[in-house]
Amino acid sequence: MATQVHPPRGMRDFLPVEKRRRERVLRVIRDAYEDHGFEEIETPVVEDAERLHAGLGGDNEKLAFAVMRRGLAVDDLRSAAAPLDLADLGLRFDLTVPLARFIATHRAALPPVFRAIQIAPVWRAERPQRGRFRQFMQCDIDIAGEPGIAAELELLAATGDALTRLGIPDAFVRINDRRILAAALEHAGVPEAEREGALITVDKLDKIGREGVAEELGSRGIDGARLLATLDAIRDGATLPEGFDPAVLDDARSLLDARVGIRLEFDPTLVRGMGYYTGPIFEIAHPQLPFSIGGGGRYDGMIGRFLGQDMPAVGISLGFERLVDLVELPAGGARDALALLVDKATPPADALAIKRDLVAAGETVRMQRRTKNVTGMLEQLAASGATRFAFVRPGDSAASLEVKPIA
Amino acid sequence: MATQVHPPRGMRDFLPVEKRRRERVLRVIRDAYEDHGFEEIETPVVEDAERLHAGLGGDNEKLAFAVMRRGLAVDDLRSAAAPLDLADLGLRFDLTVPLARFIATHRAALPPVFRAIQIAPVWRAERPQRGRFRQFMQCDIDIAGEPGIAAELELLAATGDALTRLGIPDAFVRINDRRILAAALEHAGVPEAEREGALITVDKLDKIGREGVAEELGSRGIDGARLLATLDAIRDGATLPEGFDPAVLDDARSLLDARVGIRLEFDPTLVRGMGYYTGPIFEIAHPQLPFSIGGGGRYDGMIGRFLGQDMPAVGISLGFERLVDLVELPAGGARDALALLVDKATPPADALAIKRDLVAAGETVRMQRRTKNVTGMLEQLAASGATRFAFVRPGDSAASLEVKPIA
Repeated sequence: MATQVHPPRGMRDFLPVEKRRRERVLRVIRDAYEDHGFEEIETPVVEDAERLHAGLGGDNEKLAFAVMRRGLAVDDLRSAAAPLDLADLGLRFDLTVPLARFIATHRAALPPVFRAIQIAPVWRAERPQRGRFRQFMQCDIDIAGEPGIAAELELLAATGDALTRLGIPDAFVRINDRRILAAALEHAGVPEAEREGALITVDKLDKIGREGVAEELGSRGIDGARLLATLDAIRDGATLPEGFDPAVLDDARSLLDARVGIRLEFDPTLVRGMGYYTGPIFEIAHPQLPFSIGGGGRYDGMIGRFLGQDMPAVGISLGFERLVDLVELPAGGARDALALLVDKATPPADALAIKRDLVAAGETVRMQRRTKNVTGMLEQLAASGATRFAFVRPGDSAASLEVKPIA
Repeated sequence: MATQVHPPRGMRDFLPVEKRRRERVLRVIRDAYEDHGFEEIETPVVEDAERLHAGLGGDNEKLAFAVMRRGLAVDDLRSAAAPLDLADLGLRFDLTVPLARFIATHRAALPPVFRAIQIAPVWRAERPQRGRFRQFMQCDIDIAGEPGIAAELELLAATGDALTRLGIPDAFVRINDRRILAAALEHAGVPEAEREGALITVDKLDKIGREGVAEELGSRGIDGARLLATLDAIRDGATLPEGFDPAVLDDARSLLDARVGIRLEFDPTLVRGMGYYTGPIFEIAHPQLPFSIGGGGRYDGMIGRFLGQDMPAVGISLGFERLVDLVELPAGGARDALALLVDKATPPADALAIKRDLVAAGETVRMQRRTKNVTGMLEQLAASGATRFAFVRPGDSAASLEVKPIA
């Protein structure tokens, strides 16, 4: 049994220093969102398989870890037509599907316009690779019940405030609107059946460039040059292509005109992967990073899938794992602890009495049995936040200790 | 799709009021533990199936939710000899097995004596019944690397402090020692092969009483009356049964003599379910409750199973779900929020500018579109922590608002 033991593939442990850092960053985000009037909720980490596989999660559905039904017999295995027949639960792959289910469950107990915070882990069975984790944190805010851009404005302002408090002022938000994309596809003459595929191709602009996109669109019989030219014209905004209903631009323009505390950039080629978006869409970018640090959009149809009646909703999700490395927290943060190095001859009950007195007086106390290598001990204790120490010898009391700074 | 949607069976959502309450109680516990020098760590919610099923989890192993291997084909189902052949991961059923795995993984990076906090959910596929949940929180503290009762004393003191801060001063700890039970079984002439079964029966004292226990022991050929008399004599402590090594009582006596800030009660019939305990064992009780609110003990052999070399360890786990209902938190707790009731005619961007100014000035702001039923709105806002409100009309600024208390 002396083989190396690791956490499961693609997942991580957090030691105290890193755990502390993560919790501090989460606290900053949570505080900002709470100041903006959002309220935290919690859902179970698993959802019923039928909800996770309701066609709302896009490609992420395929990455859901399946949890097996309890009480399965060997006969069940033999008669199953597919592995998922054996699973009735799954680990959530995002926080949006659970939120839609939560709102459908608790509609009557929630205010008409509900502002939710979810700060919680999600799981995806990604192929293990650098920087991709199978369990990772997301920080989501959503507003359900508000059909107008007042909701988008509040979300953007809360997000901007959180990023500012985290000391990431260079972050900015790319904005588009699914209705603009739909109008552009129609204007460019893309047949209805080809539109979803065309968007997937346009989404590759970053990776394969304009020529690559035009070529891939062409291979499907779409006039890619015309579609990209249409999107360019919309970006410029000077003269809209003929036959284009200017009203589809209204929401995006209103958002771009507002002051939300974070820079907004109109990008009519922005697609966002999920099929459920119905209005404005967002992607949070940073000049120094090749990947986004968050995103979101309006998904007016999704809650209705569970609730049975329409309910508008829009949300923004921060990718915590990508964010946490950007953040430079002020030094300190660990508690200013007092280390007690306890002489071997001191009875444990006496040492404990001293520790209890010091805790009662407001100290954070780290008690260690004194070894010969005091210097080494003090280094280790300093690393875990101790700034002062005292030796504890037989007969000592809390009052008799000589507390010295750890140099 | 308009059928009722619920969270998965036996699992719960938490709405903002309850989520806030839970987080406050967890904060009190975490603060107490941190003051006592424990440090929080985190492990993934799933562990490799071979670790969860290493025989360390007792009956709980059978309750582990199994997570299916990815990329399973139908042929795999047909050829599987048992359902678990199709699972390579499982949801953790406690925090002790993951801690042992964590310490084996990170031994070199941890101090020689490591004090861990784990505050995290666990999952058990319990038969759904009142008060039993399939996802629930545990609050564990453990000390690894300290072989003597100095560790037990620190754990008991930290636990007592947490319970005191939570306003549960009547809680007390039943104490026993697995070595006392072993000596009593030997003294009562219980054959080695029958001892584990005998302990399971003694563990039923609360449920079936002395006569029931004696009868059940008798049915296995064990002199139950003699065993119970032996345990009684040990409890009294006046005259130990002949041939009984008094040294097995040393640790329990030392613990009982120490002042740890919580009442300790020696109970030589206390068993605790898990097979891995090797020394002192604890159960946290409350005079008004028919069930325990926590427990723990020394498990010197477990980490060695993963690490390949022995490492002493002892821990105490608080059952958060049973505890949280006992706690009476001081009123308030929700933020003292300012509600803005926004006139429909106010442009959203203007309302947002007012909200941003107020947040920047330190307010928690809940912005709502004003409806006709202002009284109803204010009631709902008060329930979510708003204490003051203001109407926002076209042309208003943060400075022009007339803020009134919510009566």
